[in-house]
Amino acid sequence: MTQATSTEHSTKGAYVQTGAEFNRDTNYIEDRILRGGDNPREGRWPVEPGRYRLIAARACPWANRTIIVRRLLGLEDVISLGLPGPTHDARSWTFDLDEDGKDPVLGIERLQEAYFKRFSDYPRGITVPAIVDVASGAVVTNSYAQITLDFSTEWTQYHREGAPDLYPVHLREEMDQVMKRIFTEVNNGVYRCGFAGSQEAYNSAYGRLWTALDWLEQRLSDRRYLMGETITEADVRLFTTLVRFDPVYHGHFKCNRSKLTEMPALWGYVRDLFQTPGFGDTVDFVQIKQHYYIVHEDVNPTQIVPQGPDLSNWLTPHGREALGGRPFGNGTAPGPVRPGEQVAAGHNPLYPAS
Amino acid sequence: MTQATSTEHSTKGAYVQTGAEFNRDTNYIEDRILRGGDNPREGRWPVEPGRYRLIAARACPWANRTIIVRRLLGLEDVISLGLPGPTHDARSWTFDLDEDGKDPVLGIERLQEAYFKRFSDYPRGITVPAIVDVASGAVVTNSYAQITLDFSTEWTQYHREGAPDLYPVHLREEMDQVMKRIFTEVNNGVYRCGFAGSQEAYNSAYGRLWTALDWLEQRLSDRRYLMGETITEADVRLFTTLVRFDPVYHGHFKCNRSKLTEMPALWGYVRDLFQTPGFGDTVDFVQIKQHYYIVHEDVNPTQIVPQGPDLSNWLTPHGREALGGRPFGNGTAPGPVRPGEQVAAGHNPLYPAS
Repeated sequence: MTQATSTEHSTKGAYVQTGAEFNRDTNYIEDRILRGGDNPREGRWPVEPGRYRLIAARACPWANRTIIVRRLLGLEDVISLGLPGPTHDARSWTFDLDEDGKDPVLGIERLQEAYFKRFSDYPRGITVPAIVDVASGAVVTNSYAQITLDFSTEWTQYHREGAPDLYPVHLREEMDQVMKRIFTEVNNGVYRCGFAGSQEAYNSAYGRLWTALDWLEQRLSDRRYLMGETITEADVRLFTTLVRFDPVYHGHFKCNRSKLTEMPALWGYVRDLFQTPGFGDTVDFVQIKQHYYIVHEDVNPTQIVPQGPDLSNWLTPHGREALGGRPFGNGTAPGPVRPGEQVAAGHNPLYPAS
Repeated sequence: MTQATSTEHSTKGAYVQTGAEFNRDTNYIEDRILRGGDNPREGRWPVEPGRYRLIAARACPWANRTIIVRRLLGLEDVISLGLPGPTHDARSWTFDLDEDGKDPVLGIERLQEAYFKRFSDYPRGITVPAIVDVASGAVVTNSYAQITLDFSTEWTQYHREGAPDLYPVHLREEMDQVMKRIFTEVNNGVYRCGFAGSQEAYNSAYGRLWTALDWLEQRLSDRRYLMGETITEADVRLFTTLVRFDPVYHGHFKCNRSKLTEMPALWGYVRDLFQTPGFGDTVDFVQIKQHYYIVHEDVNPTQIVPQGPDLSNWLTPHGREALGGRPFGNGTAPGPVRPGEQVAAGHNPLYPAS
């Protein structure tokens, strides 16, 4: 959901609005892909293998969710994946990592083209994740909060054998509350710190963020996962923020009361997930750091990307097995990452530089 | 020695020169105050109680050295202390914390006035520490590297009973080498990271810094202080950088391989010194953070000062007594900080907010 803003990229103030709090634009293309979906003109698209392409930059935490859930559920064969590079300009995320700078399936250089195929006058930021109808080349939805839930509940026919239930019916009421607090206070809370336009707005954002992280530290001190014994969508949503915390949010967004490495439960929890197939193997720390430090020029005008932190400690024993739990419930872990979808060597301690 | 640059404060690039490495201007007013000093026109001033005023902003690491050494040696009665505020504009450090915005002894608003009394066309940055001849109001020296050594070796007649020998003759050869490496690689090394004008210059600076910090981590793993059993000038010089490391250099200057809290020997060492009279009681964390985050607008254009890190852990047991040692050698610790020279309540865990 990270946005390419509509103001000039290099203009000071593109992300930080002086004197103001940061408020996220939460208007999206809210079409859905449903089992009974049959009328795109009414915003209801059918579940159909091979019809859609997920566009999800590894750098972006909101997009990272979709890469994780797609892999946990084994939807790789039915929904293909396009990966824009870590940086974008004022207009769009771009396929600068692909040969000839074009997405090999959609044949476009800029994700913006798929938005314009849908709405020729699309006025808002060009965001990832986005799901594109391959035949028409038009964006179906960029509603990040719904995309992963629909992967879990609408694409069930195509889930792999052993796919976990990431949104169990009996937990949804509590899960929705937990995920709402995680969204407003943590996922978006770090941005509220980093894009604060005044000291007062920052101070307030910092207090809210750490209140929430203290709540999570407490909640995770005696339970292995957010909802108990088994991984759910709530863990996916928390993970993608936590995995970026020490590499980016701690310094770049001034979320610096402490590092995660200094919070025993959260640091154990995030390493536990990182070391679980489907989580850490989707993370590209190099792209993550490049994205934030290069794109947010009004926060980091030098655009220099820090070398730190040392990430070798992400593979150290976390000890969380002592809390019990069955990560995949009645299911199983996903198999190896598909060829062509691996993170680049050296970009993550799970993928050592050769 | 932190400089008020001669370019406009708010001009982008005042500290960071795009494409270039950071090079410190090391030209100073190198007059000295000596026991046999008797000819100011030849740059030799006499040791004389009450004649001089030390101007030293608490925020600045180079100035912090002089505040520590003055207190360790008990020179408070013979050399008075003026304290500019944490921020400065393009022209000068200012006495904005004093009543009416004027230094109560020199009667000036800007330190620049004392530089101009000495040289009416003084062309370089207005730096602290500076020693001012009170009668004439003119700067005698701003040569930070020499000032503290001369406190130790030239003002001996006025040292307090029990003052430590911070520059012992039998250690000077090794100490000079250690202090040289600490200056180029650590004291200045953090600035070389933070003011790097290109990714390449930063990467190179980062490598040099961490090579040196690994050397220090090793050196301090089995000895209590840098030169062995007893505190010396070398410890003072390392301390003033280390105490700023997690609050400022880790994030603001991108010195982020790890926090000091993650380096056992250095973290123990810096807390040991912090808890030793004469060191931590001179440190104003609030002024330190305000200085860097507000003054370096080309690194931090929002000028927002982070709330973190949590500093309560600076008073935790460090366990370094197990390495033995006599902090003050044959001497003793200094007594309480003079009234009027205490750090503000709430600015340091040694001075709790009431």
